[in-house]
Amino acid sequence: MHIEVVANIGEARSDDFLHKTVIVVDVLRATSTIITALINGCKGIIPVETVLKAKEQYQEGDLLGGERFCKKIPGFDLGNSPAEYTWESVHGKRIILTTTNGTRGIQKAMKADHILAGALLNSRACAQAAVDLKRDTVILCAGTQDVFSLEDGLCAGLILEELANELGERNILTNDFGLAMRGCYLQTKDTLYEAILASANGKKMSKSGFHDDLIQCSRPNVANRVPILERDQLVLLPQSLTRSAF
Amino acid sequence: MHIEVVANIGEARSDDFLHKTVIVVDVLRATSTIITALINGCKGIIPVETVLKAKEQYQEGDLLGGERFCKKIPGFDLGNSPAEYTWESVHGKRIILTTTNGTRGIQKAMKADHILAGALLNSRACAQAAVDLKRDTVILCAGTQDVFSLEDGLCAGLILEELANELGERNILTNDFGLAMRGCYLQTKDTLYEAILASANGKKMSKSGFHDDLIQCSRPNVANRVPILERDQLVLLPQSLTRSAF
Repeated sequence: MHIEVVANIGEARSDDFLHKTVIVVDVLRATSTIITALINGCKGIIPVETVLKAKEQYQEGDLLGGERFCKKIPGFDLGNSPAEYTWESVHGKRIILTTTNGTRGIQKAMKADHILAGALLNSRACAQAAVDLKRDTVILCAGTQDVFSLEDGLCAGLILEELANELGERNILTNDFGLAMRGCYLQTKDTLYEAILASANGKKMSKSGFHDDLIQCSRPNVANRVPILERDQLVLLPQSLTRSAF
Repeated sequence: MHIEVVANIGEARSDDFLHKTVIVVDVLRATSTIITALINGCKGIIPVETVLKAKEQYQEGDLLGGERFCKKIPGFDLGNSPAEYTWESVHGKRIILTTTNGTRGIQKAMKADHILAGALLNSRACAQAAVDLKRDTVILCAGTQDVFSLEDGLCAGLILEELANELGERNILTNDFGLAMRGCYLQTKDTLYEAILASANGKKMSKSGFHDDLIQCSRPNVANRVPILERDQLVLLPQSLTRSAF
């Protein structure tokens, strides 16, 4: 399997996603939140790029979720903290979600055959799903405003490590950026939280009172489920494809 | 000291270099070759972007050096292999050099206060020189055709490591990409040659018969001298500033 790791959305070219599986990674916090919400029983998540589009898609009973500059959007039900997306809040609901980077990454990947949402929380499950979907794979690190974010790179490194475990070292091939992210992940795998705390987003979120989100989002492989885009909606990939129970 | 690591020339914005020291890194092979040529006694190196400009700058007695697609340019005296830039070939000569990425990186950095040429060969000396020059620093990884190259990232990681040794961990601050490169360097520091051999340029150069160059360019901290741009010409920074003899 060929796995291309892309450093940020600005570097992504839509045509590079043709016939591929794309794993969109926005560890802090869009994809961590998407995984949490779907595992907590929400019916589906519609990722949209703008606040206006979110309001257009809204139907009665839906929840509006998202952030701009790390803060909840005025008039929305939920922000972008996984801690808000509890069973009590989201069970049985459809969520319209707009975030600065993660949902933009998903929109950018629309030409792909399959789009998955990956984070540290579900990296192993993403790797297993990518193998089962039998396509070459792009790991699209969302980054922050078209700049690379360390936490997304660490997640890409972990997914590569899991793909190597699944397929064997000789059967994966990655680009130089992927090699670097895998090296960086291996160097920091026992201190992931500390590494993320030292990153730009880690420092910013810690100062803004989202310290618990950092802890929550830094836990590798605690979720066995993978969000996949079906038409315009993220839902959980059937468990038979992710192979193990949550 | 703030140290920004830039992944490739395409990501560099000239204005970001104002009032800074820029270390341009093109391990395979432009900056490794520049270091080798200057240590072997060439009078100075004029880096230019195009073959046409190289020919315009040429004066009798000069050497024309450079490559396109890893190959020596027709009619030129020297290619881009450090092994060609021996004492016998270059001593006392001025060299006009044009390469695909490295010399382009130097041109891109022209708004900086100081421009140094860095490679694995002289990473520690570059870190020491950057400290002495008392500016915030940008490490500009040349990459290959605007795509990140692992060997340049590893060199950036080593320079960061040396800067941390020089200044103390609390006195350096880097961007997320720098944190990632430092992690990747630390993971691979005992197998630098093997890591570079597995990179895109490593594989390409090994196949093209430049295996010896890979070995030569993968050696960290074997040179104690630093090329610096003075007007339009790269020369060695006076040894008093690089603090130790070659």
